[in-house]
Amino acid sequence: MTMPPFNPSRRQLLAMIGQVAGAAAMYQAMTSLGFAGESGYTGEPDLQGPREGRRVLILGAGIAGMAAAYEMRRAGYEVKILEYQDRQGGRCLTIRGGDRYTEMGGHEIACDFEGDGYLNPGPWRLPVHHRAVMDYCRKLGVPIHPFIIKNNKAFLHSANAFDGRPQRIGHVEKDMRGHVSELLAKSLHQGALDDAVSAEDREKLLEGLRGWGVLDSDFSYSVSDDLGGVRGWDIRPGGGLMADRKPSQPVDLSPLLQSGLWEQLFGFNSYSFEPPMFEPVGGMDRIADAFAREVSDIVQLNARVTRIAQGEDGVTVTYEDGGRGGTVQEESADWCICTIPLSVLVQLDVDCSDAMQKAIAAVPYASAFKVALEFRRRFWEQDEGIYGGISYTDLPLVQIAYPSYGFLSDGPAVVQGAYDTATGGRTFTYSWSTMTPQERIDAALALGRRIHPQYDAEFMSGTSWVWHRVDWSLGCYGQWTEELRDAHYKTLCEIDNRLVLAGEHCSHIPAWLEGSLLSALDAIKRLDQRENA
Amino acid sequence: MTMPPFNPSRRQLLAMIGQVAGAAAMYQAMTSLGFAGESGYTGEPDLQGPREGRRVLILGAGIAGMAAAYEMRRAGYEVKILEYQDRQGGRCLTIRGGDRYTEMGGHEIACDFEGDGYLNPGPWRLPVHHRAVMDYCRKLGVPIHPFIIKNNKAFLHSANAFDGRPQRIGHVEKDMRGHVSELLAKSLHQGALDDAVSAEDREKLLEGLRGWGVLDSDFSYSVSDDLGGVRGWDIRPGGGLMADRKPSQPVDLSPLLQSGLWEQLFGFNSYSFEPPMFEPVGGMDRIADAFAREVSDIVQLNARVTRIAQGEDGVTVTYEDGGRGGTVQEESADWCICTIPLSVLVQLDVDCSDAMQKAIAAVPYASAFKVALEFRRRFWEQDEGIYGGISYTDLPLVQIAYPSYGFLSDGPAVVQGAYDTATGGRTFTYSWSTMTPQERIDAALALGRRIHPQYDAEFMSGTSWVWHRVDWSLGCYGQWTEELRDAHYKTLCEIDNRLVLAGEHCSHIPAWLEGSLLSALDAIKRLDQRENA
Repeated sequence: MTMPPFNPSRRQLLAMIGQVAGAAAMYQAMTSLGFAGESGYTGEPDLQGPREGRRVLILGAGIAGMAAAYEMRRAGYEVKILEYQDRQGGRCLTIRGGDRYTEMGGHEIACDFEGDGYLNPGPWRLPVHHRAVMDYCRKLGVPIHPFIIKNNKAFLHSANAFDGRPQRIGHVEKDMRGHVSELLAKSLHQGALDDAVSAEDREKLLEGLRGWGVLDSDFSYSVSDDLGGVRGWDIRPGGGLMADRKPSQPVDLSPLLQSGLWEQLFGFNSYSFEPPMFEPVGGMDRIADAFAREVSDIVQLNARVTRIAQGEDGVTVTYEDGGRGGTVQEESADWCICTIPLSVLVQLDVDCSDAMQKAIAAVPYASAFKVALEFRRRFWEQDEGIYGGISYTDLPLVQIAYPSYGFLSDGPAVVQGAYDTATGGRTFTYSWSTMTPQERIDAALALGRRIHPQYDAEFMSGTSWVWHRVDWSLGCYGQWTEELRDAHYKTLCEIDNRLVLAGEHCSHIPAWLEGSLLSALDAIKRLDQRENA
Repeated sequence: MTMPPFNPSRRQLLAMIGQVAGAAAMYQAMTSLGFAGESGYTGEPDLQGPREGRRVLILGAGIAGMAAAYEMRRAGYEVKILEYQDRQGGRCLTIRGGDRYTEMGGHEIACDFEGDGYLNPGPWRLPVHHRAVMDYCRKLGVPIHPFIIKNNKAFLHSANAFDGRPQRIGHVEKDMRGHVSELLAKSLHQGALDDAVSAEDREKLLEGLRGWGVLDSDFSYSVSDDLGGVRGWDIRPGGGLMADRKPSQPVDLSPLLQSGLWEQLFGFNSYSFEPPMFEPVGGMDRIADAFAREVSDIVQLNARVTRIAQGEDGVTVTYEDGGRGGTVQEESADWCICTIPLSVLVQLDVDCSDAMQKAIAAVPYASAFKVALEFRRRFWEQDEGIYGGISYTDLPLVQIAYPSYGFLSDGPAVVQGAYDTATGGRTFTYSWSTMTPQERIDAALALGRRIHPQYDAEFMSGTSWVWHRVDWSLGCYGQWTEELRDAHYKTLCEIDNRLVLAGEHCSHIPAWLEGSLLSALDAIKRLDQRENA
């Protein structure tokens, strides 16, 4: 079937549609598109269930522990969860006005937000291909809304480029695309790539570069009304007899390259950050709350595990009831699923193979921090037209994330005013982690006002979270390297007699909820198979 | 100030921040960023107000007419609106289950949607730089949520490419970027562009292309785990001992170029479609409703204007009260603001200059249609991971837009299953406009199932809207060309004695709410100046 290039008549169109309707669908259903098939998540786990009266003890009421408990109980196991904290949810939490907590080191962190803004110290955005997370949100009734990950109006900023003036993301992106297109078109016209590109492809590529890069008829990236329609305007098209429109001026290639701002865009490339992303309405802890509603009747809070002992056909866990110094208790079960972070687990008395002991001890935990700031008004929306999204800077605050909720509202609102995690070479996390809570807020303000001068007039209060000062996680997430994975990952995940570990550290998606969930689902599947072997 | 490249100590960081805090903000506030300054909208209109007892008669209770009425009354004018329909809002409307209307030609269109899905026949998405729209939403209390404009998981589709299999937007985008980067890197290495790029820029550009295009160490765009992290996976990283990840396979340059899918991406380039975009919660007519709440006490519905007569110091409008054949009435005022679409106005008896008469007659109205389909479940989310956004195809349905609300919900949901507008060379609008309502739905289904085979099993009901069959607009929007603008635009917008026109047709932003609003704001400003001259 060929498409008529221009304006088919009604008769032509109906005939064409008749042909289509008569034909079988020309491709196989959606799995062939590689979406369903690309996830280890295949929907509800298909567990056979236990022999009669089999008990499972789960350590940790984070997302992995609660998901394991939820599914194991549904399959017929008798389940209990021991949780160190006085709350469920683990690192899937949200800080709101009125919240207080004490860091390691003794500082009390206060959150005095007056509006409904919040800070998600841990996970804060959901990729749609994290199918387990999305599916549990659907099944457990957690409403979600878009988390605006890419906002072309948000800023890229370097202290040393463009006199410190932030640049719009859309401008940098479109200018670089334009310059790259112009240069490649020039090469193609020079015949420099004739060995790499056929004559037919060359013509299509040139025509495409003109559209993609918004090049003029001479294949040059330059000011024009067409470019205004893509890059924006110095004077926008108006109504009635308002001033004539004036297209914006692209930035030349050389200052753009020297600015380093192009590189700030590359993070948007990541599959994890593809648009659209989502967040639970009201805060990330809504996901934890949803699981908690399902399993809280089998959770014992304030239970500080000190020892995991294994016998031939069971496991015995020793814990202090009520926290450190509490009454020592024991709990026995046929199986134990331990989701305690390795950073904590390495300090406990765990009865498992030497290899697993080594694996537990091998994985360092990533450093990460966040600072959240409440302002009197949404000046980023009202003054700068930034509705959600994230600005990036080479200042040590690294990024400013604007709320993806409450758009247009008056009254206070919260931005995530500083966030970094120690994943690559450069990190500011360690120095921020050593600051006092007040110093962190002062620093986020002092740095952030270079991007948003309104900080000075509009600031109300701030709060922060430093993962290496949290006694129940001692860091943010398992920081695997390829070498560590080769040496220890399989051992860490295998069932050790009556014990299996789960959590984001037992996954290839560290730091993400999806890693916790898939880890838990895989662990219980294997445990159920062992039970029924 | 220079940034330390790696991990500053706490002391270094605090010292650095101290320096920053002491410095004045290094750039002027936000107008220098060109956002506030780029719009003709400057906030509330600064009207001086009338001499005592001055009446303004406004024709048409669409967005332009209602905004003009709202602001003129606030400034002290006595205002009345005559509206042809039995409703306010004009083309800013929403069709929901239970709605019925009769097209020109006599067909009754039914909307039998059972869920809360809807069709916005006219405007359906708000760019954030449409500052007048955003500001009125804020002032009038219209909640908005993100309209997902770009969804990397949505499809690009050509009947003749890839055996008719839809391709993910993210895949096409990243593959083209990769191939372009590889080719440009090859040119740079060959020295082909040494006259265009300095040696210093060349090194930065090469390094940047590697990151932007995800090239390997040989500057080749090829399968790797790094590419998997950007393009996605055939087998995604999992949890526990799930199967090993496997990166997805990029598509070669030649089939991509021949497919024509790259060009389908270029629309995302448009400044009008930059992420993020928004829509009112519950349907586009929430904006009309908000204006209607402010002015409905001065609107007379079912008033069919037949004549606009002007005298030395006033205007007299003749209308039929109750519609065609109703009692003939007259209404006099000092000024008249006429927002009737030119397609209708040209048929009325209007007392104005010959030049304005010619301008009114000169502008054709664009053809446009939409078909909306309700399905039993959100298979696009559940089966294909498409949450909001738009798929594009070269089939005559042109695009399928998924709802940006009700994510994850069970039960019926509505997609915009076909939409085209006659702006460029190719258009399917005329042939769709000649179909019966049932044929339009059949066509949207027959074509759409090639992209979503689930259509067959999940379809419930459909509805449609064809702008050339709407008797109160006779088309969708004023279809200006540069030649027409040169000849007629200024005349059309100028005050003609006691009469001024407003509406999207009197703007440089046709078809958009912002055009209507800016046109109205500019018209009343000039009218107020004339009043006070």
